[in-house]
Amino acid sequence: MKMSRMGARPEKMAPKDAETINHKLLVQAGFVRQLMAGVYTYLPFGLRVLRNIEKIIREEMDAIGGEEILMPMLHPAEIWKKTGGWDSVDILFKLTSRTDRDYALGSSQEEVVTPTMKEFIRSYRDLPRMPYHIQWKFRDELRSKSGIMRGREFLMKDMYSFHLDQADFDRFYEIAKSAYLKVFSRMGLDAKVTEASGGDFSEKISYEFEVLTDAGEVNILYCDSCEFCANVDDLSNYKEGDKCPKCGKSKLKPSVAAEVGNVFDLGQKYSKAFDMKVANDKGEMIYPIMGCYGIGITRTMGVIVEKFHDDKGIIWPKNIAPFMVHLIDIKQNDKALEIYQLLQAKGIEVLWDDRDINVGVKFSDADLIGCPWRLVVSEKSMSTNEIEVKARQNDEPEMMNVESFINSLKSD
Amino acid sequence: MKMSRMGARPEKMAPKDAETINHKLLVQAGFVRQLMAGVYTYLPFGLRVLRNIEKIIREEMDAIGGEEILMPMLHPAEIWKKTGGWDSVDILFKLTSRTDRDYALGSSQEEVVTPTMKEFIRSYRDLPRMPYHIQWKFRDELRSKSGIMRGREFLMKDMYSFHLDQADFDRFYEIAKSAYLKVFSRMGLDAKVTEASGGDFSEKISYEFEVLTDAGEVNILYCDSCEFCANVDDLSNYKEGDKCPKCGKSKLKPSVAAEVGNVFDLGQKYSKAFDMKVANDKGEMIYPIMGCYGIGITRTMGVIVEKFHDDKGIIWPKNIAPFMVHLIDIKQNDKALEIYQLLQAKGIEVLWDDRDINVGVKFSDADLIGCPWRLVVSEKSMSTNEIEVKARQNDEPEMMNVESFINSLKSD
Repeated sequence: MKMSRMGARPEKMAPKDAETINHKLLVQAGFVRQLMAGVYTYLPFGLRVLRNIEKIIREEMDAIGGEEILMPMLHPAEIWKKTGGWDSVDILFKLTSRTDRDYALGSSQEEVVTPTMKEFIRSYRDLPRMPYHIQWKFRDELRSKSGIMRGREFLMKDMYSFHLDQADFDRFYEIAKSAYLKVFSRMGLDAKVTEASGGDFSEKISYEFEVLTDAGEVNILYCDSCEFCANVDDLSNYKEGDKCPKCGKSKLKPSVAAEVGNVFDLGQKYSKAFDMKVANDKGEMIYPIMGCYGIGITRTMGVIVEKFHDDKGIIWPKNIAPFMVHLIDIKQNDKALEIYQLLQAKGIEVLWDDRDINVGVKFSDADLIGCPWRLVVSEKSMSTNEIEVKARQNDEPEMMNVESFINSLKSD
Repeated sequence: MKMSRMGARPEKMAPKDAETINHKLLVQAGFVRQLMAGVYTYLPFGLRVLRNIEKIIREEMDAIGGEEILMPMLHPAEIWKKTGGWDSVDILFKLTSRTDRDYALGSSQEEVVTPTMKEFIRSYRDLPRMPYHIQWKFRDELRSKSGIMRGREFLMKDMYSFHLDQADFDRFYEIAKSAYLKVFSRMGLDAKVTEASGGDFSEKISYEFEVLTDAGEVNILYCDSCEFCANVDDLSNYKEGDKCPKCGKSKLKPSVAAEVGNVFDLGQKYSKAFDMKVANDKGEMIYPIMGCYGIGITRTMGVIVEKFHDDKGIIWPKNIAPFMVHLIDIKQNDKALEIYQLLQAKGIEVLWDDRDINVGVKFSDADLIGCPWRLVVSEKSMSTNEIEVKARQNDEPEMMNVESFINSLKSD
């Protein structure tokens, strides 16, 4: 993409109303614009990051048997009344039509997926099933000051699973957990799994996927020697300095963390509410056990900015960066065009700052935007055929042949 | 995709409440489910069709300089009050938060795109700009009985253009018109361009892209000899039997049509409402001329089903079909698997009905779902290495070598 053709672009100054790093950097670098607290427009850079996150999630959900569908956002009140959510879910947005019908804006989709799958799941032969979708959700938050980390309108992947019995849910939970850890690892995040209460969704336990960051809203205790981690706000069985209850090797450490995913064991709450009965292999009609598996996509994008930045700007993990390469030319437009086209031909996504502006601004914008590699084409490139290559997180560039750079990316 | 792995599947019977062909066939064939009138869940087949339509639109919008962004659906009341839409747009859904703030659900995005682009467009050098997005919209319809053709929640591509003057809008309108006709032609639709009134959006004229179909809601007069077409509900300057005012060759014929796209010349209505001023090349501050360009994506999917079906089911145009090939095996699972994998390796999207069910049901489901090509692997295939190939719209199959079939698709 050529920056001269783009409407949206980075700003010299950070927005004055930004209270969080993700809000400040994402606005200044030209990824998003706030329409109101908790509601954002995604500009071309921001949309590319969302699509990259979606792609990773989609691949991993498909790999464990997920079936992608798309459920609506405007829900009739009746389905929320059936489960009691109409009165109990305080963040539910409600509205009334001209014809006096009551609707809710989907804050979650158990109320839609259960009656939908009820039509298709008739016997144990149809189980398990794992429909999922990637869709915008709405929450009537009292405050929304964490940038894109806690939106009133936010993008989420939610999967729902239907099982013949608890054992099958437990079996699938382990598969989903591995897939979730793989998703976060592909995005450059080290996520910890904690146990917490089920909240609105379930009387049972839930599992949260947490990333350690000062921008988080959750207090956790974790072990350095094993994967043990607990949400202390919810479950207070543990305290700082206790020996790890799982491995016994280290003492539990406190941290602040941000939730990027969660799993709820829904039990039979929703299958009972919608009278979804399935014949088991003895011909008896049973209520399936359900699970719900969320990953906050816009939220995760915000957490990544909180985790990966320096005082110059964002440092995107390579799998979700808006572009792999940020190309800058110092008055060598023809040579830059040649390299731009070569990179594109090799399938490398490249942002070319071809604007006729001060080169100092180009450098600072490149740091702000935060693509993994910065390439500079200068006069020197003309005689040597070498370009200046700098990884975003490094201070010093090195001179490199273009082909060698491309090969190094490919083998990365 | 293997049908045995899918939760959603075709039904024997059409839904009883369906009043339109698109509703009936899309539900029966397993593409969508109605959550309430005008609000649908898209099952895997349906989501694939939406994504195919989106892809065509995205390619053509990018080709004319469109810049993809994503604007939110939850809008603060203030922006709608600025333009008067809060009181004048009767289909606007309104809601109030717990903290007593008023919101609208976006039925269009002029109120968001104008203040957003105001930040980036500062002088004539920044013009023209054409941001677009593909997003769900909401309309508080009194009735919604046309299947996915008139949703209360519907998917739309809307592009907005910003111009220095009327001449530049006129220039770009011709470019956008060509791109629109290309979009519809790639989807197998012959669209006619009509002039109509500007409605809520503009005091100026608007352009509608209409597809002739009995399921439509618009009365038009059109000429067989040239591209002349007029919306008679809106502009009554013409009547049936008049000589074509454009070419004079034929008499105007009446038809019913469905609107699949539209263009509004917005003039300075929104740039003035949001005080968006831009310096022209003389340094004078002017209000840009704006245009708005919509294509209803879910609506177009519905129109296509209305246009392309027979009494057995849907007949998808190949560029938007959920799969290019529907593979059926008659108790030859191993051979079918081999062909399934071969087609996939060649990049051909294939749905394999590998269910252990009556083969007659497989045949009727294939007609119902409507993929362009049906392949049957039977015992005969084992000795001859030939498969039965039938185009969805033909009655008679022919025997063909698998490789020849693949080559014929590739050269198509």
